[in-house]
Amino acid sequence: MKRYEKFADQIAQLIRSGMLAPGDKVPSVRHASRTYGVSPSTVFQAYYLLEDRGLISARPRSGYFVRELAQHPLAEQETSAQSARTTAVDVSELVFSVLDSLKDPHTVPFGSAFPSPELFPLPRLARSMAHALRDMPAHAVIADMTAGNPDLRRQIALRYMVSGVRLALEELVISNGALEALNLCLQCVTSPGDLVAIEAPAFYATLQVLERLQLQAVEIPVHPREGIDLATLADSLARLPVKACWFMSSLQNPLGASMSEEKKRALYELLQQHQVPLIEDDVYAELYYGSQPPKPVKSFDRDGLVMHCGSFSKSLAPGYRVGWVAGGRYAEQISRLKLMTTISPSVPAQAAIADYLQHGGYDRHLRKLRHALESQQDAMLASAARHFPPGTRVSRPSGGYFLWFEFPEAVDSLQLFQLALAQGISLAPGPIFSATRGFRNCARLNHGHPWTAQSERAMEVLGRILAAF
Amino acid sequence: MKRYEKFADQIAQLIRSGMLAPGDKVPSVRHASRTYGVSPSTVFQAYYLLEDRGLISARPRSGYFVRELAQHPLAEQETSAQSARTTAVDVSELVFSVLDSLKDPHTVPFGSAFPSPELFPLPRLARSMAHALRDMPAHAVIADMTAGNPDLRRQIALRYMVSGVRLALEELVISNGALEALNLCLQCVTSPGDLVAIEAPAFYATLQVLERLQLQAVEIPVHPREGIDLATLADSLARLPVKACWFMSSLQNPLGASMSEEKKRALYELLQQHQVPLIEDDVYAELYYGSQPPKPVKSFDRDGLVMHCGSFSKSLAPGYRVGWVAGGRYAEQISRLKLMTTISPSVPAQAAIADYLQHGGYDRHLRKLRHALESQQDAMLASAARHFPPGTRVSRPSGGYFLWFEFPEAVDSLQLFQLALAQGISLAPGPIFSATRGFRNCARLNHGHPWTAQSERAMEVLGRILAAF
Repeated sequence: MKRYEKFADQIAQLIRSGMLAPGDKVPSVRHASRTYGVSPSTVFQAYYLLEDRGLISARPRSGYFVRELAQHPLAEQETSAQSARTTAVDVSELVFSVLDSLKDPHTVPFGSAFPSPELFPLPRLARSMAHALRDMPAHAVIADMTAGNPDLRRQIALRYMVSGVRLALEELVISNGALEALNLCLQCVTSPGDLVAIEAPAFYATLQVLERLQLQAVEIPVHPREGIDLATLADSLARLPVKACWFMSSLQNPLGASMSEEKKRALYELLQQHQVPLIEDDVYAELYYGSQPPKPVKSFDRDGLVMHCGSFSKSLAPGYRVGWVAGGRYAEQISRLKLMTTISPSVPAQAAIADYLQHGGYDRHLRKLRHALESQQDAMLASAARHFPPGTRVSRPSGGYFLWFEFPEAVDSLQLFQLALAQGISLAPGPIFSATRGFRNCARLNHGHPWTAQSERAMEVLGRILAAF
Repeated sequence: MKRYEKFADQIAQLIRSGMLAPGDKVPSVRHASRTYGVSPSTVFQAYYLLEDRGLISARPRSGYFVRELAQHPLAEQETSAQSARTTAVDVSELVFSVLDSLKDPHTVPFGSAFPSPELFPLPRLARSMAHALRDMPAHAVIADMTAGNPDLRRQIALRYMVSGVRLALEELVISNGALEALNLCLQCVTSPGDLVAIEAPAFYATLQVLERLQLQAVEIPVHPREGIDLATLADSLARLPVKACWFMSSLQNPLGASMSEEKKRALYELLQQHQVPLIEDDVYAELYYGSQPPKPVKSFDRDGLVMHCGSFSKSLAPGYRVGWVAGGRYAEQISRLKLMTTISPSVPAQAAIADYLQHGGYDRHLRKLRHALESQQDAMLASAARHFPPGTRVSRPSGGYFLWFEFPEAVDSLQLFQLALAQGISLAPGPIFSATRGFRNCARLNHGHPWTAQSERAMEVLGRILAAF
């Protein structure tokens, strides 16, 4: 990151935290240059950048001010629902009709599940692929199927170690993306008819998988900043024969909530007490905006109760389909289930990623990626404040590339979805994140793509559709 | 193929068909040279090759003779069982213990499920990978996940057309190897508790998948040359609520049976009459030894009742994990199931194979591969005749890389498996191919690896263990 970008981030942080309120004058160039020990040209560049992001604006002969966007700053949401509900799941059809809408490359991809592929080091990965295939002994294409690429396993285990999670190499099962790992984990600890605790709202694939496996869901409310409601979970565990929990403890999809370390520890203790396994979906782990990676619940796991699922699809190599699970006491069973269904993720893809992790500069790439996503979040938040109707609330995730909007009661997000699509804009309507088709007036918007004039226009169009409800 | 190799094949064919019997003198060099219009040196080279394969031997001052191996030529088997049995499946543990035995690279891999990786054009594939990744637009890594690589889809559809099967491009679902396709097909047309018709003996993964999905099996006997017993199948379909059939109509694993075209048509008509879908596992389709590819049952499919599953894992790119299903009327549902479980096979692997199919010389490679497998089959058959006890019977598949041995009644192939493993030799014992752990005195041996002195010694060791029973 360049110096002026760093400085711009500091100022953005002051604005986001409220230290600099809407209408406030930002420090003059001379003042800032002296206070922060940076050159005047760095300050200028930073202010241009912030103006570009819509956070500040220049007033003739007066300097820069925090933008009036905050005339109606969007409020944060409350906890998603009041009590746990148990229910059969029936949402797949709806999800597929939304996913179908993403096929047209000319659609503004606010409904997409992925960040822009332009944010990933694909040419560098291609070099790693060539390098890996050149060095691969012939027998590895068969041997690596059952065991997984040994270098990749080591590299993944190392990254766990660095972030304070100790695990045995044997715990790791390499999978076809995190979604296969999550499927296998769930099959490993449930039978048709069983009850599984999930979040409300939840990642829609969670709902589809439960539906496919004929499982019942008990929906646990999620606070948009603090994560799942532990009291409700404790109550459900005490009352109901819950066979497993499937939670995203950091950067929850769609809300963006991240539980505190303390709360994660408490969650673990609760599950440990009931001996209910946790399937921890942590696919956005690398996309935190702060300086410290959030610890997973897995870091507190003493007895292999947590199956921690990760992936390179959102942080490095979309389309390569390489994920994994640190499967705790279930690892061998998970591995066997995999041998019966897909055998293995692609061996060349595994080898390419292993080579990249060793030589490609993953951490440097991640810093750039996080910075891009954070800037784009700023831009979408600012744009939403400009265009969306008063009474709209929004999440403030500390990472990832999704914002969760709660619109005024009159808005029906399934209609919104149809109307927006007719204007070439996709979005993910609230009901696809709910076993009971709740969150009718909510939607998830993706800010994983570079912010452009087209994005801004799309937000304006959405604002007009919203106002018409 | 070189001229002397072709000529050797002609002679081998005469021996295999019985035209040249054990002990017969093969034509003298001068005679053969004149009769077949080849040079004497070509005949010499061909005879050296046949001697090397153990089919003929030189007698001092008398010329070459068909080897005495055929003093007890191994007989073919009878049909595998007399009547259909319905049963729950419980064989996974046994299969895994066998698969585990294959991990040691020093073990003679007669138990392996794959041919030698040395038989595949891996360096050429790596070039295709580099080429494909260089040209791939960034958005394809995400777009190709849902739809599959468009070039790959076209290439696969073209190969169907060339072999006389017409299908709509929309029928094709690209999968993580054929095994995922088979799993998805089965989930598509069954629910837990349902009855599925399978072969006896059957590919062991079939049994594992049924067990995992809590399905019941009705086992249909298979003739080692002619394939499944249609009368028994017809009877089962009339009496029982069979929800689907899962058959290998060509080069059945483990027997190697290939049904005639006529019989395949009759099978289709029978299923059509009962409206029972067929999951046609055709992963060895490209490994036929003759000059004509066997037609699949799919070629008779008029109303989308057949789900035809194929793969590149056994013919081109092991470890890449790219297979497919031509899913007929079930294609969309299969595709959706895939989106809920693994989303997609690796996009780079798909692109590499698509590039290879267009530019790599697939048909040339296949001719070489088939020839190698056929020679190795000759070598293993000859070696078995030398070393295995009288009363041993063996299949004579017209393709692939497996032989199915039926040993004298006293042999317990699970014990044989353990004893052989202690000597560094793996094999696939009969009971792993049976829902009821039948075929106790049978075993499948892999001849997919170049035949060496070590292979010959391993057969000798097996022969000694067998004799001790």
